[in-house]
Amino acid sequence: MSLYMFQAAVPVYTQFLTSLSNVLKKGAAHAEAKKIDPSVLIGGRIAPDMLPLSAQVQIATDHAKGSLARLAGVEAPKFEDTEKTFDELQARIQKTLDYVKTFKPAQIDGSEGKEIVLTFGTQKFPFNGQTYLIQFALPNFYFHTTTAYAILRHNGVEIGKRDFMGGV
Amino acid sequence: MSLYMFQAAVPVYTQFLTSLSNVLKKGAAHAEAKKIDPSVLIGGRIAPDMLPLSAQVQIATDHAKGSLARLAGVEAPKFEDTEKTFDELQARIQKTLDYVKTFKPAQIDGSEGKEIVLTFGTQKFPFNGQTYLIQFALPNFYFHTTTAYAILRHNGVEIGKRDFMGGV
Repeated sequence: MSLYMFQAAVPVYTQFLTSLSNVLKKGAAHAEAKKIDPSVLIGGRIAPDMLPLSAQVQIATDHAKGSLARLAGVEAPKFEDTEKTFDELQARIQKTLDYVKTFKPAQIDGSEGKEIVLTFGTQKFPFNGQTYLIQFALPNFYFHTTTAYAILRHNGVEIGKRDFMGGV
Repeated sequence: MSLYMFQAAVPVYTQFLTSLSNVLKKGAAHAEAKKIDPSVLIGGRIAPDMLPLSAQVQIATDHAKGSLARLAGVEAPKFEDTEKTFDELQARIQKTLDYVKTFKPAQIDGSEGKEIVLTFGTQKFPFNGQTYLIQFALPNFYFHTTTAYAILRHNGVEIGKRDFMGGV
């Protein structure tokens, strides 16, 4: 018995993109109930030089679709980073969930040793599939989903740890 | 070839406990440079009804040591949650890192199907080893390490994403 790459990625993205969607729904409902301009929450930040909620959602979805595409050796769909409303952010999450669900175990399993090289500026970061998923893509995904949660929580939205965790 | 449970857990805890330690060092240095009482940062919160920095560190370390112990079927050391200074938080992270490093692959690999039941109040949550690690322990670990980072970032500590990610 062993853990498979597909199992380490697809159920995680499904669980936490779904919970991110639910957290954002509570954010939208809070804005409506308290008569807060939704753009205040969507532009909310933990620090002035950190990215706003909209970007946290954009980057989290990018890590989910990008990592599966790289592991499978296919091209990920490009999403323009233009979302400015809760509805648009929900649509982006839904498109990502739909994309995540297209992957079959045979596309992802066995990618542990696959060479994956990321380029940031002029620097190259070589990974194998396993370290890329486990020590780069998933931590980044969690960083941005947690920060999205933190921005809404900081702004008074009544969400709790169970909302972050989703089903569990 | 397959991904092993040990590889999905131990290198992650090592990488992100080390980066958490470095992030806290920058927090301590910031407090000293700006003549801020360190307890202000250690008691910092993202929202008034969220846990402070000290608890984020305590819970992150608990998930690291607790998950490895459960998967291996051994008793995790208990740490009293009494840390009130940066030095005490560093000592807790170091004790956890030392404990993480005691595990051998043979203790963790093969635990995918192991029955693990968590109890919160009167509710029981049954997992197998794989879903417990991948969909419960690791997301919780990342939630608390990210929140610790966010609390310091929110309070003006000059840390960036690379500090969160550690080596990568």
